[in-house]
Amino acid sequence: MGLYQRWRRLRLPGLQACGLHTALEAAVPTPPPCLVERLGLFEELWAAQAKRLASMAQKEHRTIKVALPGGQRVEAVAWSTTPYQLAQQISSTLADTAVAAQVNGEPFDLERPLETDSDLRFLTFDSAEGKAVFWHSSAHVLGAAVEQLLGAVLCRGPSTESGFYHDFFLGKERTIRGSELPVLERICQKLAAAAQPFRRLEASRDQLRQLFKDNPFKLHLIDNKVTGPTATVYGCGMLVDLCRGPHLRHTGQIGGLKLLTNSSSLWKASGAPETLQRVSGVSFPSAEELRAWEEWRKEAELRDHRRIGKEQQLFFFHELSPGSCFFLPRGTRVYNALVAFIRAEYARRGFSEVKTPTLFSTRLWELSGHWEHYQEDMFALQCPGSDRPARPPSDPSPSPPADTLALKPMNCPAHCLMFAHRPRSWRELPLRLADFGALHRAEASGSLGGLTRLRCFQQDDAHIFCAPDQLEAEIRGCLDFLRSVYAVLGFSFRLALSTRPSGFLGEPGLWDQAEQVLQQALEGFGEPWDLSPGDGAFYGPKIDVHLHDALGRPHQCGTIQLDFQLPLRFDLQYKGRAGAPERPVLIHRAVLGSVERMLGVLAESCGGRWPLWLSPFQVLVLPVGAEQEDYAREVQQSLQAGGLVGDLDADSTQTLSRRVRAAQLANYNFQFVVGQKEQSNRTVNVRTRDNRRLGERDLTAAVGRLLELQNARVPNAEEMF
Amino acid sequence: MGLYQRWRRLRLPGLQACGLHTALEAAVPTPPPCLVERLGLFEELWAAQAKRLASMAQKEHRTIKVALPGGQRVEAVAWSTTPYQLAQQISSTLADTAVAAQVNGEPFDLERPLETDSDLRFLTFDSAEGKAVFWHSSAHVLGAAVEQLLGAVLCRGPSTESGFYHDFFLGKERTIRGSELPVLERICQKLAAAAQPFRRLEASRDQLRQLFKDNPFKLHLIDNKVTGPTATVYGCGMLVDLCRGPHLRHTGQIGGLKLLTNSSSLWKASGAPETLQRVSGVSFPSAEELRAWEEWRKEAELRDHRRIGKEQQLFFFHELSPGSCFFLPRGTRVYNALVAFIRAEYARRGFSEVKTPTLFSTRLWELSGHWEHYQEDMFALQCPGSDRPARPPSDPSPSPPADTLALKPMNCPAHCLMFAHRPRSWRELPLRLADFGALHRAEASGSLGGLTRLRCFQQDDAHIFCAPDQLEAEIRGCLDFLRSVYAVLGFSFRLALSTRPSGFLGEPGLWDQAEQVLQQALEGFGEPWDLSPGDGAFYGPKIDVHLHDALGRPHQCGTIQLDFQLPLRFDLQYKGRAGAPERPVLIHRAVLGSVERMLGVLAESCGGRWPLWLSPFQVLVLPVGAEQEDYAREVQQSLQAGGLVGDLDADSTQTLSRRVRAAQLANYNFQFVVGQKEQSNRTVNVRTRDNRRLGERDLTAAVGRLLELQNARVPNAEEMF
Repeated sequence: MGLYQRWRRLRLPGLQACGLHTALEAAVPTPPPCLVERLGLFEELWAAQAKRLASMAQKEHRTIKVALPGGQRVEAVAWSTTPYQLAQQISSTLADTAVAAQVNGEPFDLERPLETDSDLRFLTFDSAEGKAVFWHSSAHVLGAAVEQLLGAVLCRGPSTESGFYHDFFLGKERTIRGSELPVLERICQKLAAAAQPFRRLEASRDQLRQLFKDNPFKLHLIDNKVTGPTATVYGCGMLVDLCRGPHLRHTGQIGGLKLLTNSSSLWKASGAPETLQRVSGVSFPSAEELRAWEEWRKEAELRDHRRIGKEQQLFFFHELSPGSCFFLPRGTRVYNALVAFIRAEYARRGFSEVKTPTLFSTRLWELSGHWEHYQEDMFALQCPGSDRPARPPSDPSPSPPADTLALKPMNCPAHCLMFAHRPRSWRELPLRLADFGALHRAEASGSLGGLTRLRCFQQDDAHIFCAPDQLEAEIRGCLDFLRSVYAVLGFSFRLALSTRPSGFLGEPGLWDQAEQVLQQALEGFGEPWDLSPGDGAFYGPKIDVHLHDALGRPHQCGTIQLDFQLPLRFDLQYKGRAGAPERPVLIHRAVLGSVERMLGVLAESCGGRWPLWLSPFQVLVLPVGAEQEDYAREVQQSLQAGGLVGDLDADSTQTLSRRVRAAQLANYNFQFVVGQKEQSNRTVNVRTRDNRRLGERDLTAAVGRLLELQNARVPNAEEMF
Repeated sequence: MGLYQRWRRLRLPGLQACGLHTALEAAVPTPPPCLVERLGLFEELWAAQAKRLASMAQKEHRTIKVALPGGQRVEAVAWSTTPYQLAQQISSTLADTAVAAQVNGEPFDLERPLETDSDLRFLTFDSAEGKAVFWHSSAHVLGAAVEQLLGAVLCRGPSTESGFYHDFFLGKERTIRGSELPVLERICQKLAAAAQPFRRLEASRDQLRQLFKDNPFKLHLIDNKVTGPTATVYGCGMLVDLCRGPHLRHTGQIGGLKLLTNSSSLWKASGAPETLQRVSGVSFPSAEELRAWEEWRKEAELRDHRRIGKEQQLFFFHELSPGSCFFLPRGTRVYNALVAFIRAEYARRGFSEVKTPTLFSTRLWELSGHWEHYQEDMFALQCPGSDRPARPPSDPSPSPPADTLALKPMNCPAHCLMFAHRPRSWRELPLRLADFGALHRAEASGSLGGLTRLRCFQQDDAHIFCAPDQLEAEIRGCLDFLRSVYAVLGFSFRLALSTRPSGFLGEPGLWDQAEQVLQQALEGFGEPWDLSPGDGAFYGPKIDVHLHDALGRPHQCGTIQLDFQLPLRFDLQYKGRAGAPERPVLIHRAVLGSVERMLGVLAESCGGRWPLWLSPFQVLVLPVGAEQEDYAREVQQSLQAGGLVGDLDADSTQTLSRRVRAAQLANYNFQFVVGQKEQSNRTVNVRTRDNRRLGERDLTAAVGRLLELQNARVPNAEEMF
């Protein structure tokens, strides 16, 4: 039976048809019969479980040992003592702020009785794990609201890095409209305020199938994902949901909740995809924290790089080249400063920049495997003069005609050709080829947005060809490269080692060795890192890099990726020390990632107040009166000849202080004011963006100092001048 | 009657069939009947002309005044005194070395009697005009050879910048083979040695038609190009040819002649194109000069940029990306140094660099006119996800489907979009947008060769949008930009003003004004320039720039081009001083032109001995023994951290002097030798490419000095160190 048929069996025409506004008015809505039935069964099973637990605790009365967070060790009763009780013993504040426990490293409900000797930790909202529990619990509240009031069939309700969402089915025609979000939000807030406890139930497969007989998504999960004989179900008020947990003790811990967006999403787990509704939101322990977040969010919106890009005249987009950015002079300035920074690092670190073509025969992409795996995202074309179309409309054959070309989506195959274009010796390794070549990827037009996702972009892309015994040193070098660059850009970062996925290619022994090398490099590096087992690519393990910008928002930009497959596919070889041909290892790595995207991240991170070395607004020269205009132009020329951005505001209809203020608001790092005195002395009167007056300085010395500060790439040139 | 039919009427089966080897053996070949007939008629007309001239000279006996080159003024007899006679009066050397005269600014045969008061100059082989006469005369010798020995029907025999060629018809099957060139060359040498005089005949249209009744090419010329009642014909030995002249006095002035290449060419003047044979050659007044030229040519071949590119590991080509260059690390070094040079000039000269996309909707190219005029040379493709082919094989409609994209062949339309993306004011002008964006042009694969012609390249392309009254200053700025850059690169150059062609677009008044402005700018610039009437583009007049490299070879790289059409097509406007919308003028300009091509020109011009600032071989560090290897690495690291190319030769199996010599042969500008003493003193022992020993220098000071010399872009850093 299809989803839609199942949906119709729910027989909720009244509720489904009524809008949320109506639903809210009905103080206590009548719950749909199938929910009442599910809740009844849950209560029955729950009572049985409670009885069973009580009897076990009584019968056994086993004393267990619990190690508390401070190091203290206490005794507790198996199947009876809960983490919450122990938290209360430590402090009432902890009991109030804890959102879940960790027992022997596993997440655990606060109200779930301990079973064995335990190493106990408490999670609060301050930690990433605590936030995940908090937001996932909030997704249940949202689920309860749409299920009870709209007759939604719930699908998934996970936490995300910045909140939560719930996907649900509302029938084929009904969608959630943006105007309904405020009402839905008030319902969620009411449900939260009701402080309904989360109740954990361990149910057998048969019981699960009985509980969720009206929810095809959950049935699909039970049939395909539940591997053991039992799984957990949580009850919370009228909601009963299949869920791994853990959750908050009760919904009353959610002091502030806000719904943010509505959209549609696709459920593709089985057969024909089904369109679902998605509502996303965010929540906090208190209303004050929600208000603070709303302030932060307003700030982030002000920092939106598209807004900054437009206001600062950095770049624009045009319908005649969708997904490609036009960088205006000031944007190109920032762009080139980023590239020059990486180039300087390349020189220091033994990377060799190369330039490779943009258009390649699809024979290259067949060789590299991109044609098989990535063809849909590539721009392909026929060489003019050939009669055949790029993509035959009726017969899309897997192998293209011989003279089909495609724009490169990645640089690696070109670098493999470069490695292979002449015989190589071990003496040449490690060979570190860097390339700023333009990459084209045919992203769907719906997914394009600002600089975050483009069809055309450049990366600070490099490929390291090295001998296996050079791998660890190279990985260390890559990590050091990342740290240096992110430090200058003002980012913190977190590393994760992603190991072999199921279906990996290559020899397990090679993978073992490589994963071990990566792990050694990470340990030697001295920064904390996480393990993401199974998250590697099929062609090699990798180190994922999550950077955090000045607002603490995460971005994935850099990458360090091992590749065992490309050297095989291109039959790359070098003459080893002993004279025999050997196969190099390939490392893909990038620090900025897409230069375009990084420019957007930086614009938001600094909120348009660029550090001097990246700034497209370095100095504004302000003649006090019309008589100083010529000298002001000379000052401007000195700045420009040194390669600095020197603009001129010669509009003497405004007062000087008003013009200085305007320059500061426009984020000019420095203002050089020139009056009669400065002209006579060939000096400039220096002010900073923060309106500090640094006084009269010799023109040549001032330009020299700016160049020094620019070349040193300091974050606070205004203070160091 | 078609060409082939006419050809068959020549009835020269014997001669046509016999190879040149046979022809050469026949000491005095029997001339074809039609040539005998033509020659007979020529002699008849010539005798009549000589009689007429003699009688005119006698009857009139008019004395005319002649100003000689030195300033001396002499008297002469109209219709009798020849420039040659006057040259003899000046000096026998002049009479011997003169190749033609200039009379009142017009080219003139040395043996042609003067007619009126004359300002007389003599042309020698040393001048470009003299070379043109010399080489054009040599083309007649080549024509005579193929006509008399192969029965060729002569078409065109012009001089070129570096020699001459002759195009002729040999029937549909016969071609000239490379192996025949030496024989043909010996025949030409024999004909030259015969010292046949060039005889000038003024003939009426009827006489012309009679003389050339067997030559369809000449008949086509007579009917289509001869505008006056008469035209000149020259006789030289058995050859009679329609030709404007002037020529050498006699073929004996050609002391050395060499044939170089054979190829085919296409005659497209009328109806169906006809395939012709082309033989090219070069000639000199003496055998010694020819030998010197052969030496020079050998040197030029050694300097071939493809050879240098391979030897110095600068770049390579690959069949998987035909027409695109792969720049290896050292080539990318040169490339980036060129771009950085132009960027520094942009900063000094108020140009703003921008970055524009590579892929645009064909709607842009329809708007710009490229789709109409340039479509065949563009790479077009369908946006993936669309079903329609880029170029429908059966129905090539002029307007492409809405979602066709094309790779940009030029930057100008993107810059027009940038100008137009928001309202502009007169205050913003002149707006100088520069772009190093990758351009793609679908050059035929046969025309690709090294870096000279590529399918993918970047230009130092800029577009200046200015008000009409800013035009002259901008053109002056462009000319000054050219001169500065070419001076640093060691090139001389020559300018030519190309004015409106027939079929120009736009108002004649606008053209008048613009041509006048360009002329004023050229005159104010102070360098010699030529006028090329009618050579402008249909959308605006331009200044052509011919640079000459260190070997004196010409290249066209830079350009300054006015454009009245694009601002119209894109409806570009700015708010003028008075508030009303005005239309900007657009200047396209480039100095290097294609950066790739310029890299090739420079490689050849310097013969791989790069000046320091461009050099991919700046310094080789040579440790004397293995004990100094660590210090040598430190020296290398100092160089690299400063952004210099510092390589290391630690191979201590070779003697030091041998390694120094090898470094010099590899064109390393400097060698830093480090021994025990240098290591203790933290110094380096400096030698140059020319094996000058500059002695011990402090390491930091030496690196600093190299950076200074690099940044100053001096041509002779080795001498200035």
